[in-house]
Amino acid sequence: MFAKRIERLTSSLVRDILAAASRPGVISFAGGLPAEEALYRPDPAQLQSLQHCWQYGQTEGEPQLREAIAAEARALGIACDASQVLVLSGSQQGIDLVSKLFIEEGTRVLVEAPAYLAAVQSFRLFGADFLPVTVDPVTGPDAQSFKSALDSAQLAYLTPTFQNPSGYCYPAEQREHIAAAVDAAGVPLFEDDPYRELAFDGAAPQPIVGRLKNAPWVYQGSFSKTLAPGLRLGFLVAHPALVPHLTRLKQAADLHSNRLSQHLILQALQNGLHEHVAQILPVYRERRDAMADALTRHLGDLVSWQKPVGGLFFWVRFKQAVDTHALMRRALEAGVAIMPGDAFYTTTPEHSCLRLNFSHSSPAEIEEGMARLASLLR
Amino acid sequence: MFAKRIERLTSSLVRDILAAASRPGVISFAGGLPAEEALYRPDPAQLQSLQHCWQYGQTEGEPQLREAIAAEARALGIACDASQVLVLSGSQQGIDLVSKLFIEEGTRVLVEAPAYLAAVQSFRLFGADFLPVTVDPVTGPDAQSFKSALDSAQLAYLTPTFQNPSGYCYPAEQREHIAAAVDAAGVPLFEDDPYRELAFDGAAPQPIVGRLKNAPWVYQGSFSKTLAPGLRLGFLVAHPALVPHLTRLKQAADLHSNRLSQHLILQALQNGLHEHVAQILPVYRERRDAMADALTRHLGDLVSWQKPVGGLFFWVRFKQAVDTHALMRRALEAGVAIMPGDAFYTTTPEHSCLRLNFSHSSPAEIEEGMARLASLLR
Repeated sequence: MFAKRIERLTSSLVRDILAAASRPGVISFAGGLPAEEALYRPDPAQLQSLQHCWQYGQTEGEPQLREAIAAEARALGIACDASQVLVLSGSQQGIDLVSKLFIEEGTRVLVEAPAYLAAVQSFRLFGADFLPVTVDPVTGPDAQSFKSALDSAQLAYLTPTFQNPSGYCYPAEQREHIAAAVDAAGVPLFEDDPYRELAFDGAAPQPIVGRLKNAPWVYQGSFSKTLAPGLRLGFLVAHPALVPHLTRLKQAADLHSNRLSQHLILQALQNGLHEHVAQILPVYRERRDAMADALTRHLGDLVSWQKPVGGLFFWVRFKQAVDTHALMRRALEAGVAIMPGDAFYTTTPEHSCLRLNFSHSSPAEIEEGMARLASLLR
Repeated sequence: MFAKRIERLTSSLVRDILAAASRPGVISFAGGLPAEEALYRPDPAQLQSLQHCWQYGQTEGEPQLREAIAAEARALGIACDASQVLVLSGSQQGIDLVSKLFIEEGTRVLVEAPAYLAAVQSFRLFGADFLPVTVDPVTGPDAQSFKSALDSAQLAYLTPTFQNPSGYCYPAEQREHIAAAVDAAGVPLFEDDPYRELAFDGAAPQPIVGRLKNAPWVYQGSFSKTLAPGLRLGFLVAHPALVPHLTRLKQAADLHSNRLSQHLILQALQNGLHEHVAQILPVYRERRDAMADALTRHLGDLVSWQKPVGGLFFWVRFKQAVDTHALMRRALEAGVAIMPGDAFYTTTPEHSCLRLNFSHSSPAEIEEGMARLASLLR
């Protein structure tokens, strides 16, 4: 009865974990939720001033918001204008649109290993074959492996800035090399950049797409991590040749994005998004440091990890093989939600890993959750 | 470079018309926009009370809103509970999700002829082959044609209530016969019902899906026509066997719908959506009657049409063949936007038709626009 792609709709393990993680009393390191304290709450006076949000709007997005996003992108070294901007109903929608544009059964997609789970799921739904490139938590992708995967790829998907889940941030030189390789191969590059603003130890290097000379590209970002995910707003900026197709795909997907959210976020951009981010960074830095301390004290001899310089996650590798799914179930019984690392791979990984989120729990909860985890492991 | 489906992304004729129609000074009969006067504008005090909209939410939608939608569906004779409800980012999203669930290259889809354009475009994008069933503006679909199309269909898509574009409303007896035929064939039925509340001469019969005994079904509705399209909110209710798949597809498409819109619409439902609709119906009825009068006076000898008992459109058939695309271009030059009828067919239609929207123009604009159209045709 169903289309064949439905067989590829991945199991609901992650949905189940996240549902369990939201139960009262559970300390959740499983999701990627912003801190409640960090959520942007629009001023009610701003809400009252919104009087042009109720009629149908343009598929591409509100013109002023597109201008503001283009200006932000140019500040990151991406030569573009507002006509290349598409406002999205969250950056998950960008993954859906790019999947529709490029991927059918057998399309070869270069992905990082580990990679962002929900992107892999969408690519798989549309029939992708994966070309995984291992991202070492310290040195990133191996240049030779990257190049040989690129040689047979039809699309490359990268999250070079504070990657989810590994936390890795590609340095400028590596970005230059990758841009040159992508240009040489002529492969479309899809760069996903939702965590850029959450930089704890200095700004990240400029995006890879701004370093390209001729390859087609899509760059996307999100307001979910800096303002409020409930508003479901993201954006993409794309090579001019891709914009008409992406716009029609967007129209077929939901006509246009919520206009109320668009105006709220435009106001936030005009009134100082970056100031808001500057206020929330100390909250995240404190939680990151609390998790680093707790990991050292409770699990220091069992795992290795890098302190993330941005983003929302620790990527923790066990020194010996561990059944992380069994651990996940036992941890849930003990009131702690964790995410097994193999969920982020398209093939069986070499190491037993966990992804641990530090943004949604207080330092005290992080300490308590880590103590419980440690007692399960000993 | 692109997936093969991109070749099936239909030309942007309609987008072009709608863009031209929004130019200042153009009288637009082309789109399907609600009257500005009819748009629901939330009370600012309500907006201020919204304090739980900023974090990530559930893919399925806000629990209270799902309960309220299930109650409305039950009142229409659809046996269901809240677990069968999925909140959508506009009902266009439901078309995308149902396309993903059922349609791949060569899937045979029964559609009305004429049919809702944006649904046909989405089905085509995913590779549908169409089985069109002619809907006569007076008698609806022929029972025998419907049955024989159903015999080879893998999905049936119907808009039985104030159909866009024909305006036809299936009577109760016809709905019963169709339900029995769908049950006998075991074909999934996708019933799209965005116009139900816009009933000018009495309520429409209960939906077809509520009359099914065993066939799988998806029923969807929209708040765009009754409240405000800018909030981009619709819903679907589905057979329990389809809900888990549709939920995962929704998650892959945009994680969840805008929470601010969900709470605003929940408040509207609690505070009297039906009272709001009762207030706007006279506006629409007056405009419909104005267009009927203007059609009679200006084009009475050239066209035939039925006065629609609901919805937003007149479906106008020329007595002699007319190049409606040439007419459209000349009309635009004269400051009137119209929609050629062939856009709503999957095959070449027998008659020259136009779809004319009456909701977005004042009675004076309707009179002026129709006079200009008539002068072009004489």
